[in-house]
Amino acid sequence: MIIDSHAHVTAPDSLYVFKAGILAHRGAHGRGGANVTDEDIIKAHTSPVFGGSSHLDQLKEAGTDMQLISPRPYQMMTSENPKLVQWFTEETNNIIAQTVKIYPKTFRGVCGLPLTPGVSPKAVLPYLERCVKEQGFVGFLLNPDPGECSGVETPPLGDRFWYPLYEKMCELDIPGHIHSSGCRSERLSYSLHFINEESIAVVSLLNSTVFNDFPNLKIMVSHGGGAIPYQFARFEAGSLRRGGPRFSEKMRNLYYDTVLYSADALALLFKTVGADRCLFGTERPGVGTVKDPKTGKWLDETRHIIESFEFLSAAEKKMIFEDNAKKLFKIQV
Amino acid sequence: MIIDSHAHVTAPDSLYVFKAGILAHRGAHGRGGANVTDEDIIKAHTSPVFGGSSHLDQLKEAGTDMQLISPRPYQMMTSENPKLVQWFTEETNNIIAQTVKIYPKTFRGVCGLPLTPGVSPKAVLPYLERCVKEQGFVGFLLNPDPGECSGVETPPLGDRFWYPLYEKMCELDIPGHIHSSGCRSERLSYSLHFINEESIAVVSLLNSTVFNDFPNLKIMVSHGGGAIPYQFARFEAGSLRRGGPRFSEKMRNLYYDTVLYSADALALLFKTVGADRCLFGTERPGVGTVKDPKTGKWLDETRHIIESFEFLSAAEKKMIFEDNAKKLFKIQV
Amino acid sequence: MIIDSHAHVTAPDSLYVFKAGILAHRGAHGRGGANVTDEDIIKAHTSPVFGGSSHLDQLKEAGTDMQLISPRPYQMMTSENPKLVQWFTEETNNIIAQTVKIYPKTFRGVCGLPLTPGVSPKAVLPYLERCVKEQGFVGFLLNPDPGECSGVETPPLGDRFWYPLYEKMCELDIPGHIHSSGCRSERLSYSLHFINEESIAVVSLLNSTVFNDFPNLKIMVSHGGGAIPYQFARFEAGSLRRGGPRFSEKMRNLYYDTVLYSADALALLFKTVGADRCLFGTERPGVGTVKDPKTGKWLDETRHIIESFEFLSAAEKKMIFEDNAKKLFKIQV
Amino acid sequence: MIIDSHAHVTAPDSLYVFKAGILAHRGAHGRGGANVTDEDIIKAHTSPVFGGSSHLDQLKEAGTDMQLISPRPYQMMTSENPKLVQWFTEETNNIIAQTVKIYPKTFRGVCGLPLTPGVSPKAVLPYLERCVKEQGFVGFLLNPDPGECSGVETPPLGDRFWYPLYEKMCELDIPGHIHSSGCRSERLSYSLHFINEESIAVVSLLNSTVFNDFPNLKIMVSHGGGAIPYQFARFEAGSLRRGGPRFSEKMRNLYYDTVLYSADALALLFKTVGADRCLFGTERPGVGTVKDPKTGKWLDETRHIIESFEFLSAAEKKMIFEDNAKKLFKIQV
Amino acid sequence: MIIDSHAHVTAPDSLYVFKAGILAHRGAHGRGGANVTDEDIIKAHTSPVFGGSSHLDQLKEAGTDMQLISPRPYQMMTSENPKLVQWFTEETNNIIAQTVKIYPKTFRGVCGLPLTPGVSPKAVLPYLERCVKEQGFVGFLLNPDPGECSGVETPPLGDRFWYPLYEKMCELDIPGHIHSSGCRSERLSYSLHFINEESIAVVSLLNSTVFNDFPNLKIMVSHGGGAIPYQFARFEAGSLRRGGPRFSEKMRNLYYDTVLYSADALALLFKTVGADRCLFGTERPGVGTVKDPKTGKWLDETRHIIESFEFLSAAEKKMIFEDNAKKLFKIQV
Amino acid sequence: MIIDSHAHVTAPDSLYVFKAGILAHRGAHGRGGANVTDEDIIKAHTSPVFGGSSHLDQLKEAGTDMQLISPRPYQMMTSENPKLVQWFTEETNNIIAQTVKIYPKTFRGVCGLPLTPGVSPKAVLPYLERCVKEQGFVGFLLNPDPGECSGVETPPLGDRFWYPLYEKMCELDIPGHIHSSGCRSERLSYSLHFINEESIAVVSLLNSTVFNDFPNLKIMVSHGGGAIPYQFARFEAGSLRRGGPRFSEKMRNLYYDTVLYSADALALLFKTVGADRCLFGTERPGVGTVKDPKTGKWLDETRHIIESFEFLSAAEKKMIFEDNAKKLFKIQV
Repeated sequence: MIIDSHAHVTAPDSLYVFKAGILAHRGAHGRGGANVTDEDIIKAHTSPVFGGSSHLDQLKEAGTDMQLISPRPYQMMTSENPKLVQWFTEETNNIIAQTVKIYPKTFRGVCGLPLTPGVSPKAVLPYLERCVKEQGFVGFLLNPDPGECSGVETPPLGDRFWYPLYEKMCELDIPGHIHSSGCRSERLSYSLHFINEESIAVVSLLNSTVFNDFPNLKIMVSHGGGAIPYQFARFEAGSLRRGGPRFSEKMRNLYYDTVLYSADALALLFKTVGADRCLFGTERPGVGTVKDPKTGKWLDETRHIIESFEFLSAAEKKMIFEDNAKKLFKIQV
Repeated sequence: MIIDSHAHVTAPDSLYVFKAGILAHRGAHGRGGANVTDEDIIKAHTSPVFGGSSHLDQLKEAGTDMQLISPRPYQMMTSENPKLVQWFTEETNNIIAQTVKIYPKTFRGVCGLPLTPGVSPKAVLPYLERCVKEQGFVGFLLNPDPGECSGVETPPLGDRFWYPLYEKMCELDIPGHIHSSGCRSERLSYSLHFINEESIAVVSLLNSTVFNDFPNLKIMVSHGGGAIPYQFARFEAGSLRRGGPRFSEKMRNLYYDTVLYSADALALLFKTVGADRCLFGTERPGVGTVKDPKTGKWLDETRHIIESFEFLSAAEKKMIFEDNAKKLFKIQV
Repeated sequence: MIIDSHAHVTAPDSLYVFKAGILAHRGAHGRGGANVTDEDIIKAHTSPVFGGSSHLDQLKEAGTDMQLISPRPYQMMTSENPKLVQWFTEETNNIIAQTVKIYPKTFRGVCGLPLTPGVSPKAVLPYLERCVKEQGFVGFLLNPDPGECSGVETPPLGDRFWYPLYEKMCELDIPGHIHSSGCRSERLSYSLHFINEESIAVVSLLNSTVFNDFPNLKIMVSHGGGAIPYQFARFEAGSLRRGGPRFSEKMRNLYYDTVLYSADALALLFKTVGADRCLFGTERPGVGTVKDPKTGKWLDETRHIIESFEFLSAAEKKMIFEDNAKKLFKIQV
Repeated sequence: MIIDSHAHVTAPDSLYVFKAGILAHRGAHGRGGANVTDEDIIKAHTSPVFGGSSHLDQLKEAGTDMQLISPRPYQMMTSENPKLVQWFTEETNNIIAQTVKIYPKTFRGVCGLPLTPGVSPKAVLPYLERCVKEQGFVGFLLNPDPGECSGVETPPLGDRFWYPLYEKMCELDIPGHIHSSGCRSERLSYSLHFINEESIAVVSLLNSTVFNDFPNLKIMVSHGGGAIPYQFARFEAGSLRRGGPRFSEKMRNLYYDTVLYSADALALLFKTVGADRCLFGTERPGVGTVKDPKTGKWLDETRHIIESFEFLSAAEKKMIFEDNAKKLFKIQV
Repeated sequence: MIIDSHAHVTAPDSLYVFKAGILAHRGAHGRGGANVTDEDIIKAHTSPVFGGSSHLDQLKEAGTDMQLISPRPYQMMTSENPKLVQWFTEETNNIIAQTVKIYPKTFRGVCGLPLTPGVSPKAVLPYLERCVKEQGFVGFLLNPDPGECSGVETPPLGDRFWYPLYEKMCELDIPGHIHSSGCRSERLSYSLHFINEESIAVVSLLNSTVFNDFPNLKIMVSHGGGAIPYQFARFEAGSLRRGGPRFSEKMRNLYYDTVLYSADALALLFKTVGADRCLFGTERPGVGTVKDPKTGKWLDETRHIIESFEFLSAAEKKMIFEDNAKKLFKIQV
Repeated sequence: MIIDSHAHVTAPDSLYVFKAGILAHRGAHGRGGANVTDEDIIKAHTSPVFGGSSHLDQLKEAGTDMQLISPRPYQMMTSENPKLVQWFTEETNNIIAQTVKIYPKTFRGVCGLPLTPGVSPKAVLPYLERCVKEQGFVGFLLNPDPGECSGVETPPLGDRFWYPLYEKMCELDIPGHIHSSGCRSERLSYSLHFINEESIAVVSLLNSTVFNDFPNLKIMVSHGGGAIPYQFARFEAGSLRRGGPRFSEKMRNLYYDTVLYSADALALLFKTVGADRCLFGTERPGVGTVKDPKTGKWLDETRHIIESFEFLSAAEKKMIFEDNAKKLFKIQV
């Protein structure tokens, strides 16, 4: 069974019409909603999206059996007015929950959280609990920079600022999927900002006492861990100098998805953190849904690459494609 | 011959006493200077530094024949008062030039530039020219974020903002070595900020028209290119979608040093960008100058790793260790 | 013939999906577009909107023969990043032009302008000229507060800051329709902000030398002139004290639409400024498209109210419904 | 009997000399005071002011029997340093109380409050209580924008921020007279800012739950309610859409003064909100104290206009001129 | 003959009523004016002020024959809106010029300048020229901190920023009297801020090249030079260390008034800078106009103290009381 | 016995290398330390410093028997990141304590405090207590402007903000030595800022109720009290006007060091505040350690000047040189 642990919802247009509206009227028209019917969702999943075919067809093409879908991060506008962020996050999560209900064999939901830049995550814990207990979400996007590079900083994930969230995560036994949202700097795009934030998140978490204090905390890092599997030895040096546990060992406190689109990078990831810490992920349809004219294949069709790795055993491949996801997200099929 | 293209000056204490002083009196005591004698420099290079032995001894241990030394980036305080930045940069460069004069067979100089955050690089071009023509520097540190993550942004390296500098670089036929300085954010250390800035620099340069407009521009990226050799396929997707030249091909417009301390990362780098674009570098003595208890080796003794790579030919190894550096920095021995 | 001089475009959903996207990716996906087909526009005008029936049906119900349509102001996000504002304004204008081409007997276009808060309007003049000469727009929305109450102030309309625009308006013989966009203050909604800005605009213009310097300038104020026809005597006092021309006389330098939904207010407007300065307008479908349970009529069906005024002659009514609009906007049927 | 419910104190020069002084020395000379004697006050009321005759003579000319006097709002500098605002407000209130004591048949006092922009009104409640209980004030100026358009916003009057004040108003059974102070924006004068703030206040109050929560709250809006009696149908639409009570009905929760200087506007006001909600007011001597060369009458002599309205009964006129003021302000003669 | 070179105008109340008004209406009532008659000025100078007797009587009591009067500095509000500062400065200067015309034997005028914090003094040069050539002012207040300690800094007087003013001063052969205005810091009063600013001014001027570049520049420092005659040796040390001319010698490039109220301080001043650099000054009526219960004398009656100094010759005393003022301000009697 | 109550530590270079490092890495290398050995300290005190001879030799030359040493104020960077300020302050204090231990007959320690601009001093009280009780400090530097003129203001010393510190000072019976640190304004140097801050401190303390509330509070002002002994009569006037105790009497609540380098200034100080309030001080080696070519003496060799004053008795001189220091700092020899 192939589980794709990192993908984003294909929402009906009305979600974005709703968003454009609330950003403009700023609440003057009331809360309102995207008012999405099951038909809208079915149509959204069966109509062509980028890549040419429909979301459901793309899963079939890639051989994916189940996909974990979350809000499309760059759309989440988390540095905007908190009330509007909350409304849009709720609408998006509701559409995800509705989609999972319609396609229970194909999708599981990972919700977004309406965090406010620099503000304690305490405020969102009741909502997170409702998402998990009432709407059946199996994880959530843990956004390390709700300020979206706007200048309002939020402490890094190793800071005690985040402990109330970690306590709730352990209590609910729910994993956080590290993924930033937009980027307001003119110096880089949101897509590269994802990578940089993942590097910051990994280094901050592993150089902190978080995993000592929360040994059962479950965190998955997007996009193969940002720069860190490639750059880890730089941080290994510091850990050796401090005489503490090696940074490379601590890297195994985290989980990593495989949203990387080159064979060398995937191999480096598996060799660096171990197959037991990796979850297959594609973001498909997403950034990698483009055909490489050289190979004639979609860049995000990485299943074949992984399957071809001889240095991985069959058991390890099954871990990556299925077992790790089932364990981390407690997926029962 | 082994040339280490990325290392930093081991300066006498008086340079940092000078710095502490100007930061405190802010010019009230006048410009002053570090007043470093040749004896001071010789003493600095023959006394133990971190790692235990002296800078010169560390080169011998590692088998390095020649090293390119530049200001120690995290010390450069480029987001401080511009007058003080200029003073400290000049003092540091002077010490480097003096060091090269004392040890002409061992060192070559790469100077720092007193850039001001968000301000056109035009102002520093005459100084750069003097560094090259009068003090014999063979390259300079190209700091993409003189604001040191303080909130004052400087346009990314692909922006026309930087064109006056690129024109001067071509005119002088001098390479820029991309390296940021400190980091004032509480979310990450300067060391990780280096990596993130390198990723921003590479993506910005390669998605711009810089190399179309300056085909002879010579730029070397630190630390093996930040996250990009590992994450490149993410950006390959965009380039394929635009139908333009592949991002991976454009990556070969840049040079990369090998300041990575793990075999897998080094292998990935060579395979991704090609041996002809890589320059051996260690930062030794520096972040990697720590002994790995497992291997008993210094982390930054990566020469042996590279020499052991079977997938590289002898010619390729010579390129990495010697030829590329000689060509890029126009080093004559 | 009934011409409705103040109404806004009914755009396909894809315009707002486009907007939600660019606000989120901030240009990282490139300029893109709403990619609206004629079919999309026809569908948008024949599908139910708020009020229950379609835009075209609502015109028929109200007996409107021709309508001037402009961007929906609250959606214009003019205080956002200037590049994004320009993209969204262009897309919206393009859809309006396309709509006018499809329904040449029913619609005429009034374009939006991508003004930047506090920045001279000079930059948008070439674009305005293209809108008029190439796309056939008959007027434009003159936004007195592109900052959207965000704290970045733009000088009021009586300031010489606006003179380059007034020169171009006279040169092109094109009227400006005063209408602000959104409102970022938490103290009031955009809808009331419209009214307040109209009052500021009228007082600033009439207490300035604008109409002395530009006697042929054509400006129409939205919503019956904000508060001013009701509050004018307050400003009459100042003009009498200065011994200058009476404020009430200067009010006749401007034109006013009739977007007011009560008989008493409409009567006050006509009596205060004269029928020859008033243009029938409804914003339908818009804020007034709601049925009054008392009368069973739509609030914005004000044609009947005006027709019933005995104090207006038939010629005056024709002015209001037809002649003034034809003259001001140079409409030929 | 004619009661003028909206007028401002004619203070001796020494009040403004005091103000100029504290703004300059900022407390360095101590609290000090205006040190006004009864003679000073008598002189101030019997010397010519703008309009040519004295304040007392102007009342006689206009046939006013009693006047409610409050601080002259534009002078209140409420966005200045809070300590200075408090001092100046106290001095002004003291002069008003002293004036009422001297002319007990002619004047009643309405005090100012030293509110600080964005700060809870709790801090001024003890002072308000003293003003009412010890100094005999019959109402107070309720300033909805103590920040004077300076950028520091105070929540609008419908916000729970104001509830502590509303509780105290009900407890003391004292009315608030909505009136803003100065205006620091360069876009509009304080006089128009009054109007805009009144519109904001009315809409915010009526779209909130304030009158549900405080059914006995007594609030009078200045200048005939800003723009709202003219523009009300715009907000009626929203109330109908929400299916709630009509905005026009809720308008009768408020009282309005008649400080409008044109017959049409006065008629619109009475017809829109009802004679039982209107209190005669002139601000005389004030903005309207100028002779209209056409009629030879003062603009603020609106008593004759109101008396001439045939659509009002004698009882209604008595309400406007006398009964409503007596009831609202609990005036006993 | 006794000339008091440092005193401030005793203006009629209407000047401060004017000021309170423009600060409040911010121009909405137009420029207006204090409208001061000769009678008002005569009354102001013959009515009691602080100290108990009238300004003219206080001069007689102290035996002063002629006084140089300038705007009362703490009242000048130079950090306010520039337009309002200009209006108030002009009104104040006009009253001074009018006063000098009424009392030509008693007064000479020293004008204020409407400098804007951080903005080049170029803008005020034409006005300064008019003050001197058309209104007969013999000097002007040189305000080193128009920002009034508000956080907007103006470069210190030794900076080239001030050169355009120095050129004009030399061209007009007119002295500048260093005197700051108000103080917006909560840490100190304007009165102590005067002293601190004078210290800054003296040190900045003397450690700069101003007197090399403008050898004929005439500058008088208020209040005996701030702290510097007492603290000068601290700066002497620096000048000796630099091997340059002694600070104590350069102090003689400046003039100093004697506005100090203790014998020891006056003696220190004369001994430190020399009698030929000192001008008698009292600020009377002003801060020192209070009777010392011990001596029964006014604190600012310092003439007797100076006359009693045995270490000064009669010629030196005449310099201090008369000759230096006549020379510096070119006073002809 | 000659006790010099105001001098600063001569620290080994490594303290400033440490400082330059933490300012640059901002904690990324961990807390670290200056790691100063007794040998380093002995070397620092026996090597030449500015002035030419060693610190210890300079004491001998000047005839000083004991010196109170504190951190070198301009180096303290108190407006920097609080964590770094704390680290650097601790390191500096540790070196002082270590120096006192090495030279117990020559030195006593006065510690610095890591105050944060605008933040209550409560946070540093436990540290102050440890300095006194565990490290034997006999006083501390009381910095009235930890913001270093950066724009972040701290209330002046007369404000209740400082009461927690004053309580602790009384409890520990420890004196505070008023001394500011650096100066970030471009308008003046730190050295003049010292003087200005001392003036502010004295005026604020003496015009407050601090000495009424803390009659046993012990405070010494640096540099002879800033400007105040010279300018005191200006403030005497205010105190007489208020009818309160004379400012000159209240000046005797404070102690003053004699760090003035001219005979006239020293004489003024003694005459103004009394010998029983003065403590001999030189800052040697420091600003005054320069030879006057006229006299051939060091400027800071003021012992001879004081000894030569005939107006002082032998007992008074002993007070100044020895007794006052012993009493204030509780020094036992």
